[in-house]
Amino acid sequence: MTDKTLDDILVQLRGALEQNNLTGAVSIIEALDSPDQADLFYELDDEEQVALLPELDPADSADILEELDDVHAAELMVALSPEDAIRIVDEMEPDEVADVLNTVTPEQAEILLAGMEDADEIRPLLLHPDDSAGGLMTSEFLALRRRMTAGDAIKAIQEWKPKRELIYYLFVIDRYQTLSGIVNLRELIVADPNTRLIDIMETEIISVPVGSDQEHCAYLMARYDLLSLPVVDENKKLLGVITIDDIVDVLEEEATEDIQRFGGAEPLPIDRSYLDTSVFVIARTRVSWLLLLFVTESLTGTVLRHFEHQLQAAVALSFFVPLLIGTGGNAGSQTTSTIIRALAVGDITLRDGLHTFWHELRTGLLLGLCMAVIAYLRALSWDSGQYMALTVSLTIFILVVWSNSLGALLPLLATWLKIDPSVVSGPVMSTLVDATGLFIYFTLASIILGI
Amino acid sequence: MTDKTLDDILVQLRGALEQNNLTGAVSIIEALDSPDQADLFYELDDEEQVALLPELDPADSADILEELDDVHAAELMVALSPEDAIRIVDEMEPDEVADVLNTVTPEQAEILLAGMEDADEIRPLLLHPDDSAGGLMTSEFLALRRRMTAGDAIKAIQEWKPKRELIYYLFVIDRYQTLSGIVNLRELIVADPNTRLIDIMETEIISVPVGSDQEHCAYLMARYDLLSLPVVDENKKLLGVITIDDIVDVLEEEATEDIQRFGGAEPLPIDRSYLDTSVFVIARTRVSWLLLLFVTESLTGTVLRHFEHQLQAAVALSFFVPLLIGTGGNAGSQTTSTIIRALAVGDITLRDGLHTFWHELRTGLLLGLCMAVIAYLRALSWDSGQYMALTVSLTIFILVVWSNSLGALLPLLATWLKIDPSVVSGPVMSTLVDATGLFIYFTLASIILGI
Repeated sequence: MTDKTLDDILVQLRGALEQNNLTGAVSIIEALDSPDQADLFYELDDEEQVALLPELDPADSADILEELDDVHAAELMVALSPEDAIRIVDEMEPDEVADVLNTVTPEQAEILLAGMEDADEIRPLLLHPDDSAGGLMTSEFLALRRRMTAGDAIKAIQEWKPKRELIYYLFVIDRYQTLSGIVNLRELIVADPNTRLIDIMETEIISVPVGSDQEHCAYLMARYDLLSLPVVDENKKLLGVITIDDIVDVLEEEATEDIQRFGGAEPLPIDRSYLDTSVFVIARTRVSWLLLLFVTESLTGTVLRHFEHQLQAAVALSFFVPLLIGTGGNAGSQTTSTIIRALAVGDITLRDGLHTFWHELRTGLLLGLCMAVIAYLRALSWDSGQYMALTVSLTIFILVVWSNSLGALLPLLATWLKIDPSVVSGPVMSTLVDATGLFIYFTLASIILGI
Repeated sequence: MTDKTLDDILVQLRGALEQNNLTGAVSIIEALDSPDQADLFYELDDEEQVALLPELDPADSADILEELDDVHAAELMVALSPEDAIRIVDEMEPDEVADVLNTVTPEQAEILLAGMEDADEIRPLLLHPDDSAGGLMTSEFLALRRRMTAGDAIKAIQEWKPKRELIYYLFVIDRYQTLSGIVNLRELIVADPNTRLIDIMETEIISVPVGSDQEHCAYLMARYDLLSLPVVDENKKLLGVITIDDIVDVLEEEATEDIQRFGGAEPLPIDRSYLDTSVFVIARTRVSWLLLLFVTESLTGTVLRHFEHQLQAAVALSFFVPLLIGTGGNAGSQTTSTIIRALAVGDITLRDGLHTFWHELRTGLLLGLCMAVIAYLRALSWDSGQYMALTVSLTIFILVVWSNSLGALLPLLATWLKIDPSVVSGPVMSTLVDATGLFIYFTLASIILGI
């Protein structure tokens, strides 16, 4: 839906609400798809939201709460009467309820859980961190027994009314609830109704322990083209299932974190949208890196003071400082972004370290050569004289090669130290290149210009 | 599978190949899952790969070629005899075959197409750009007629042997092959076998025109939690289907492009892995930005020469130059990465422009204040004197506020101009902040220090 259409509908909705025409407002919202419902709903004032939510079909209200960010959903849930809130959460998917309950106070969570039909499904989900397999999984899955026939299984599916429309794979468990096989729905339909599941199930199953990191789950599902991933405890007992639509969200979330980190900040909290995150929280994610880089960058002052004599003798030297260190930083930022991403998608691993370094070294030599020629001509055009131009040109060559090497090595080193390589952000690269670049520049200048 | 296990298996595989024991090598590979097969296969020499591929079960060879990048797959296909190649491509999914055929010469593609069973399915796919809905879709889908009963539909599924195991939704078409409805497999199973599809199908269908951008397709599938997305022509005739596993790849690809662009380079070609991309190609993706930024950064030299008198009078002024412009660039990079990503995931849109600017302006004021205090103390600790410290401190305050504002405005401006906001990369931000930052610094210095 375009913003334009949404605006028009919003005007109608506001009109209905102003005339206290709740029925009209409800029918406007219920004509839309749930993500659009949530978008529209999001534009309303807090009071309007609280007034409207209990009036909608609980299934629609549940969809809307699932689309909103967790903090916003939790605020609404707390503002509703417990009866209304319970009616709605009963329609939500267990993993989404768990995410929201993790955001309200334990007392509020207890009130809601006490009234809910499926509280037993949800309690175990509350024990796991949000970014683990346990935090992602839903406890709503259909587990069949090995000696069931295909016909019985189809009957079980017909009787089962999952909240989510989609059935991916069906899980087969033994008497200890250990996961022993997977049957996909197509196999089941094609099979003779009297076949036992044990004879058609796939027994080589990819599953994850409940504590696995969400990034690892996303990696497995993307790599093996899985639509759902079973989550098991240490005894291989089936605890829940992660579905592909949750992984699509994880992939977006992880890419967001990588880009924010690469920009030189800690990732923003994921349970709030950007504009709902207060400026204090945003500033907090940025200030520590800004300070750390400031302190490191202070080294440039130390280097410059060390070469005070040269600066006094030839003030023209300082004209090139931002240009040189800027270009070094840019080359470093280009390299590290490529390497970080190649590591993240598994394009390279630590075993390719040497090969990667060699690759970037050669790229650096090529780019350095190219930039050196341009820098030489640029320096001449500023009437800086041949020797000055040579100094600038040689510095930029060395600096680009150095930045490319560093940009390749540091993310690899971070990976080897089991640190997220995206800490080697663009700002980190330029900061590291600045002080070393100045040192190279002034050393070359002392030699070539004889000062 | 861990790298360790893979290494062990690789040693066994190499051993078998050295003894010309092709049967042994085949059985080692066929014991693995296809992504692992591809990983292992990738480690072999080119000749080993060409020797082994025709010996494997054609379905396995097809899976391996699908996992490899397109250029690599195309090279192997050309190295095989046409008969072997045809036997393998016949087992591949149509969209994957089309990607590979787009990489070989038209003559080579024609030889393969001439021998293939499903050439008619593949030819239409060759007409669409790789990054459009048409390039992503597969022509392998099951289209049912409206007057069919649920029972007939299940029979049709049982007879249909798709190459991909997964059935997501079933499409219902009319006599003009126009898409008129969607039935999900669960509904079909639950329905009375005599019900007509027209009575159980969902008619509100989200579909895309064949020319849609892949990013838009990914957005729709993520937003509406779709497992497959029908692709239609201008008359709503059903042409193909995009499946969720392809979209997972698209999301990774788009995140990779964003991060590379944010690092200040054009994205690398996606049909080759990083280490298989030659250093010339890598250098080409970087050199244009490096040059453009170099030329823009030259402005810093112009500013510095303009203030030559001040630099002569107080050489200590230059000690702070990298520190000041570095911090400005870092603050700008932090901001623009947040805003670019918030725009990409739809967290903010153009209509939030003013709100976003106000948000970053306040964040900038907060961060600027914090950094100004630190900078003041740092400058004092270098014995720079009160006035110098004041100049540095005031500059950094203004610079951080300015960087944050610019970092918020430029991506929004790019979006308004329908340019990808990720062109406002970290390096672009620091380059823009450098010249303006110097101007602010020296202007303040002239006033405060009276030089």
